[in-house]
Amino acid sequence: MEAKSNFVPGLEGVIASETAISLLDTEKEKIVIKGYDLIELSKEQDYLDIAHLLLEDKLPDQNEKTKLEEKLKERYAIPTEILDIFSLLRKQIHPMDGLRTGLSALAGYDNQIDDRSYEADTERAYDLLAKMPAITVNSYRALNGKEIVHPHKDLSYSANFLYMITGEVPSEEDAEIFDRSLLLYSEHEMPNSTFTSRVIASTNADMYGALTGAVSSLKGNLHGGANEAVMYLLQEAESAADFEEILTKKLYKKEKIMGFGHRVYMKKMDPRAAVMKESLKELCEKAGDYSLLEKCEAGEELMKQEKGLYPNLDYYAAPVYWMLGIPIDLYTPIFFSARTVGLCAHVTEQHQNNRLFRPRVNYIGKPYA
Amino acid sequence: MEAKSNFVPGLEGVIASETAISLLDTEKEKIVIKGYDLIELSKEQDYLDIAHLLLEDKLPDQNEKTKLEEKLKERYAIPTEILDIFSLLRKQIHPMDGLRTGLSALAGYDNQIDDRSYEADTERAYDLLAKMPAITVNSYRALNGKEIVHPHKDLSYSANFLYMITGEVPSEEDAEIFDRSLLLYSEHEMPNSTFTSRVIASTNADMYGALTGAVSSLKGNLHGGANEAVMYLLQEAESAADFEEILTKKLYKKEKIMGFGHRVYMKKMDPRAAVMKESLKELCEKAGDYSLLEKCEAGEELMKQEKGLYPNLDYYAAPVYWMLGIPIDLYTPIFFSARTVGLCAHVTEQHQNNRLFRPRVNYIGKPYA
Ligand SMILES: CC(C)(COP(=O)(O)OP(=O)(O)OC[C@H]1O[C@@H](n2cnc3c(N)ncnc32)[C@H](O)[C@@H]1OP(=O)(O)O)[C@@H](O)C(=O)NCCC(=O)NCCS
Ligand SMILES: CC(C)(COP(=O)(O)OP(=O)(O)OC[C@H]1O[C@@H](n2cnc3c(N)ncnc32)[C@H](O)[C@@H]1OP(=O)(O)O)[C@@H](O)C(=O)NCCC(=O)NCCS
Repeated sequence: MEAKSNFVPGLEGVIASETAISLLDTEKEKIVIKGYDLIELSKEQDYLDIAHLLLEDKLPDQNEKTKLEEKLKERYAIPTEILDIFSLLRKQIHPMDGLRTGLSALAGYDNQIDDRSYEADTERAYDLLAKMPAITVNSYRALNGKEIVHPHKDLSYSANFLYMITGEVPSEEDAEIFDRSLLLYSEHEMPNSTFTSRVIASTNADMYGALTGAVSSLKGNLHGGANEAVMYLLQEAESAADFEEILTKKLYKKEKIMGFGHRVYMKKMDPRAAVMKESLKELCEKAGDYSLLEKCEAGEELMKQEKGLYPNLDYYAAPVYWMLGIPIDLYTPIFFSARTVGLCAHVTEQHQNNRLFRPRVNYIGKPYA
Repeated sequence: MEAKSNFVPGLEGVIASETAISLLDTEKEKIVIKGYDLIELSKEQDYLDIAHLLLEDKLPDQNEKTKLEEKLKERYAIPTEILDIFSLLRKQIHPMDGLRTGLSALAGYDNQIDDRSYEADTERAYDLLAKMPAITVNSYRALNGKEIVHPHKDLSYSANFLYMITGEVPSEEDAEIFDRSLLLYSEHEMPNSTFTSRVIASTNADMYGALTGAVSSLKGNLHGGANEAVMYLLQEAESAADFEEILTKKLYKKEKIMGFGHRVYMKKMDPRAAVMKESLKELCEKAGDYSLLEKCEAGEELMKQEKGLYPNLDYYAAPVYWMLGIPIDLYTPIFFSARTVGLCAHVTEQHQNNRLFRPRVNYIGKPYA
């Protein structure tokens, strides 16, 4: 039998990997991505810059950026059989499960699937980045009996993504805010979904496998699923006062409030949430309707007072997506889509310097001789 | 920044969970399943007895066993849309990816998918156990342009599974050996795929998600994929001497030999492998052809001498499956199918007493201010 002393539920504080990709530095209060501060990056760079940084280890110059955009556009289209599979899915399936099924089937189209080299994994990552909008949006549309939508190649990556979601070419401001949300979601050290994909990759399994596992993880409401749960909660309330009452009742029943708390920064607001809160303000101002912001702020204040808990990114991404006209069912799939580049970077790193993840257990079952 | 001292690659020796399900007791040299010794169980019980033990916490009496068999037979059939999805998969996809895609899509047919109660998870586990043969075999058949095969309800669970694989009603001896292999594969503490499914389940994600992640993990050749790799290696060799030469060359090139070694019992033969070796002997005797056994024994001896490494279950399961007439591409899917009950028991346990898995990292990337 094993010593029981070193069991930490949820591996809290346990170092699972060495990584050159990112770090939540709680002392310096920074989300570090390849040496950069994510919040600083969000002011000057866009999502594709971060994608390039994550996959090529440097921010792109103008020439590299143009090449990247072209490369992605060439690869936007997904096989028609994948679209046919979407149309066969049972309509009640969650879009995350639809997306997962499509991603899983996409493995069949990779002619180098057994190649684990850095180059092959990186090309694969670009391919996935290019295809995620079509997979995300069309699995959702098929489940809702809507026609397939094709990418609009004159738009930027994020503007096209938002266009495919809403069916309308977005304003520059909306496209920018959406892009910023993708950037903020792109990479975040070792959350459950990233850990899942590294654990899977460590058996020498391929990137599609690692990513389908990450979709499954992200669907859970203690993780990515929280952004949808937040929006349903906000919708329930008619006013800020009403929202406070709903939260108070939930706290009384000892329920967890989605959108609050974080394993790593429990005692401070997620800096990404603060950026999204600013975007929410802009959107409310443009719409001349501050009701969502008021509800959110009331909830934020209440949770601080009552529990000393602060908003995480999902709390403010949800109302932003609502104001951008995005269907709630797509919030978690969009989170996944944005995280694809971060996940691919981790899988590639794991493949390059691998050791199988294989921990042990404390047996607390029936005794034996 | 974090202290670097407590980083153990692959979480070797780290306790990830408390569990009442199973333990590899290296001191007493036992694989403990719910208080029983797996090797002892393999002498008297069959696969469905272990399934009942894992899901209901006790071995079934005759009445419970009959009820279980009936319940499974009622649920054997899979939705026709899943079969249609199989036929749309690109033919070059690996059957593990086909199986994963089917399992992922099956989530849409669970009308209680948001129910995480013990009862709901257990019913789901039986449903998956019932449907795994049809999913495993028919995804493989569709990929190989073969007609769909339907379950044969007059046969036992394992005899039917083998019948669906080979297209022939198996002899009693063959069905028994196949059943024993399923039993030995059913549960094994915290290998990578089980860990993957618990990590995913800890976000409050559902069982289909946890299991699709586990398929992805098991496909890797450092894990379940090893049984297929072993068979390809055995096929390469014309004789025992030839096999030794192939292995020697690989060792010289510092390649890993599939089917040898194990994180937990590195210094002794996997006791499950010893049981399968006996089954291989029986099959060779019946066939009057000992060539596979001779190759395996030569390899076993060589690896002991040269590396002090011993066979794991995959090493002897592979030639057994070959002698049973099972296509090599199905070896890992069968491993997964057999492990379904173990995985479901772990997911259920995780849901009942949950804490989110969220470890940390050592950042070794570009410095920052
Ligand atoms: C993210 C999260 C899972 C991290 O949790 P963790 O590190 O495992 O911490 P725990 O769940 O053990 O929480 C510690 C304590 O804070 C409380 N707590 C944490 N988050 C809470 C929340 N959102 N609402 C109410 N209470 C919360 C817990 O109930 C627990 O209290 P206790 O010690 O009295 O039992 C957790 O904060 C949570 O569930 N948040 C809501 C879901 C969410 O928004 N997820 C998105 C994260 S980006
Ligand atoms: C199962 C396995 C991944 C466990 O490995 P682990 O605990 O991570 O141990 P490592 O891979 O670090 O191996 C430790 C040492 O033994 C060697 N080794 C382990 N398994 C070996 C094998 N099958 N063939 C040759 N050498 C092997 C390693 O090369 C390493 O040697 P080194 O210290 O000189 O570098 C490993 O034994 C393996 O890859 N086996 C082959 C795949 C297989 O059969 N998997 C099915 C397992 S049920």
